[in-house]
Amino acid sequence: MNETEHFTTDSTKPIHPDDGVLRLYSMRFCPYAHRVHLVLDAKNIPYHSIYINLQAKPDWFVKMSSTAKVPALELVKESGNPVLVESLVICDYLDEVYPEVPLYPTDPLKKAQDKILIQRFGLFIAAIYKLLLDDNPDLDLAELNAGLDIYENELKQRGDKFFGGASPGMLDYMIWPWCERFAALKHDDGTQVELDSQRFVTLLKWRDLMLQDKAVKSFYLDGETHAKYMSSRRAGNANYNMLYHAAKRARRE
Amino acid sequence: MNETEHFTTDSTKPIHPDDGVLRLYSMRFCPYAHRVHLVLDAKNIPYHSIYINLQAKPDWFVKMSSTAKVPALELVKESGNPVLVESLVICDYLDEVYPEVPLYPTDPLKKAQDKILIQRFGLFIAAIYKLLLDDNPDLDLAELNAGLDIYENELKQRGDKFFGGASPGMLDYMIWPWCERFAALKHDDGTQVELDSQRFVTLLKWRDLMLQDKAVKSFYLDGETHAKYMSSRRAGNANYNMLYHAAKRARRE
Repeated sequence: MNETEHFTTDSTKPIHPDDGVLRLYSMRFCPYAHRVHLVLDAKNIPYHSIYINLQAKPDWFVKMSSTAKVPALELVKESGNPVLVESLVICDYLDEVYPEVPLYPTDPLKKAQDKILIQRFGLFIAAIYKLLLDDNPDLDLAELNAGLDIYENELKQRGDKFFGGASPGMLDYMIWPWCERFAALKHDDGTQVELDSQRFVTLLKWRDLMLQDKAVKSFYLDGETHAKYMSSRRAGNANYNMLYHAAKRARRE
Repeated sequence: MNETEHFTTDSTKPIHPDDGVLRLYSMRFCPYAHRVHLVLDAKNIPYHSIYINLQAKPDWFVKMSSTAKVPALELVKESGNPVLVESLVICDYLDEVYPEVPLYPTDPLKKAQDKILIQRFGLFIAAIYKLLLDDNPDLDLAELNAGLDIYENELKQRGDKFFGGASPGMLDYMIWPWCERFAALKHDDGTQVELDSQRFVTLLKWRDLMLQDKAVKSFYLDGETHAKYMSSRRAGNANYNMLYHAAKRARRE
């Protein structure tokens, strides 16, 4: 099975070598799972990716996780192979247990302030998804722009390349999956939206810098690909295996 | 101004002595703010409570906080008097900065597992509030009971008095505000619901033990009082100052 093929109802659980390597249950286009890929890659933690078809979940996956949601991280070195869920809980756990590339500020106040900005970003994820997924989107860009103003002003005030300073930190990685997907908006027939280059000077510079980051690069998809997936999802038939089939076709040619 | 009177639009910002004591902006019946009161009390951290009328917020409050929501914690000892928001972020911050009464397990895995149970509780807070606040509640107790089964089984399996062990921990305190409010259901004309004493043997024993806890006691309100507030909120006229007026009446008598 190719690594980007998504496991489905009739599949059998993949057998991995007893190598002690973390197993991440994911979906290739899920922004929440994307967060965990970024943190694992930023910290150079080896892991197996196991992709799940969310519209036809395998029984073995439903049984092994308390919520049957992705991302789910199986800790094979711990007794009983516990499975962690919830993207922010998983990322905080990884930062605590793998301190080599620390992603939070060491000052508890600064850490709390970054966590607030991560939580607040969640509040307008809904606005972004409305734009990306609605068939006939009510183009309420005002809500999206007002949300992004917070981050534009914050980053300008910090005066660093990244929210995390000279290199991306937890806040950068936790908001990145949705920022990467903004690029899908202009490929979308219904919206064709781009971020205002005057209003978001700092954030757009940040986006270019993020695109050079090793962890971002290793799980990156361009706007056209994201738009294609969104369009399949809007049509009620999420094309989870889009990349898998494309890779197979490329091998045949 | 009595300490349980809620500040409103036309109020002026209360002047506190420059005593370095934390200032918690709260609403007496808000379960999210309740979480922060519990953690501050559990850790014996002194603080000033400042209650806010959420239907007619003071301008000075809207200006001082990034979200204008309660709970908000003003850190008067830090430069610029930063204000933290989001109940879980505030509580995690307090646990980190005031480690004297640690509320999380020291093992990062156990800590992550408790955080997952805190997050999952959030998922059925909606079901509880539907019961408590709907005028003509669709009595879908099944959802509520299925959610509580998770905590009943978890606590039974842990075999301790509290989720935190011999004394309440973060998980106990983070779910308590809603558990305290269950007692309001039986005082409510529309619902008159009590938790199934067979199904929730362990949780009901836990509830009795929690009621003996010092932090729980110091911010406790009985089911009848909660029900009265809920009923005022359902009627579109949330009676924030219910306790303040009752205390005033009692003093006059």
